[in-house]
Amino acid sequence: MGRPHHVSSREIERKFLIKRLPVQILRSRHFRLGQGYLANEPGGRHVRLRKKNKVASLTFKVGRGTDREEREIRLSPKQFATLWPATRGRRLHKTRYELPWKKLKIEIDIYHGRNHGLMVAEVEFPNQASRRKFKPPRWFGREVTGEKRYSNVRLARE
Amino acid sequence: MGRPHHVSSREIERKFLIKRLPVQILRSRHFRLGQGYLANEPGGRHVRLRKKNKVASLTFKVGRGTDREEREIRLSPKQFATLWPATRGRRLHKTRYELPWKKLKIEIDIYHGRNHGLMVAEVEFPNQASRRKFKPPRWFGREVTGEKRYSNVRLARE
Repeated sequence: MGRPHHVSSREIERKFLIKRLPVQILRSRHFRLGQGYLANEPGGRHVRLRKKNKVASLTFKVGRGTDREEREIRLSPKQFATLWPATRGRRLHKTRYELPWKKLKIEIDIYHGRNHGLMVAEVEFPNQASRRKFKPPRWFGREVTGEKRYSNVRLARE
Repeated sequence: MGRPHHVSSREIERKFLIKRLPVQILRSRHFRLGQGYLANEPGGRHVRLRKKNKVASLTFKVGRGTDREEREIRLSPKQFATLWPATRGRRLHKTRYELPWKKLKIEIDIYHGRNHGLMVAEVEFPNQASRRKFKPPRWFGREVTGEKRYSNVRLARE
């Protein structure tokens, strides 16, 4: 996530399964993400720990789907090491590829471990008009925006 | 909480309402606590932010009543300021008094704001034997250990 730390933000996103990989993925920026959940409320409100390469963070999110609030802080390695064991049984690992796409950015998540085989694309939009106008590329599969089954909270259940 | 940061611990505690204030409270150490909840699962698992005088922390807890797990980290003022707004509508304020009591420590919480009038004592024990042997002082009222109604998560609902 290219968003700055220590700020709150609202996201407008759509999420799709991936039918086949685009050739651009071979030369796109990517990194490994490990994340685990400290607490998840049934309504979607949750607190997540994440390690992106060597950088650790804690993120609060509330809301689901196309409109939600997010607050994120960087964690020191020591802070992360203290909290991480509490996410046992609620973790997932994936590699994220970032594709520039017609002034937008497509994030492709390739899941590892028990979610092996799952590939999901997320597109973030600057506003609702841009969201509506978006034409999915042909390598996109079914849209799964807002489907709980494909939420990371759900995918992290071991 | 006199526990060190950056460690996990298991607590054995009992909780009581207070019938009348003991005279010792007038000369005991005390401080103001403001706390708010980022996320609470129905089973009691939660993530709490707290400010004790000027010191900010984030605590993960799982389990309830006499046996639970806890992990705590210190937060920088900037980390705290980023996350605190997310606890709106889920906060409480109290003054905590710490009374030494026969090799044990009694923590007395005097609640403010919408919980004004509520006074609760918590006693922490080094082991189960000590827990069972404990004779409540006469100024203690009804035991409320494990009663959800008196959990801080519940008391923080505005």
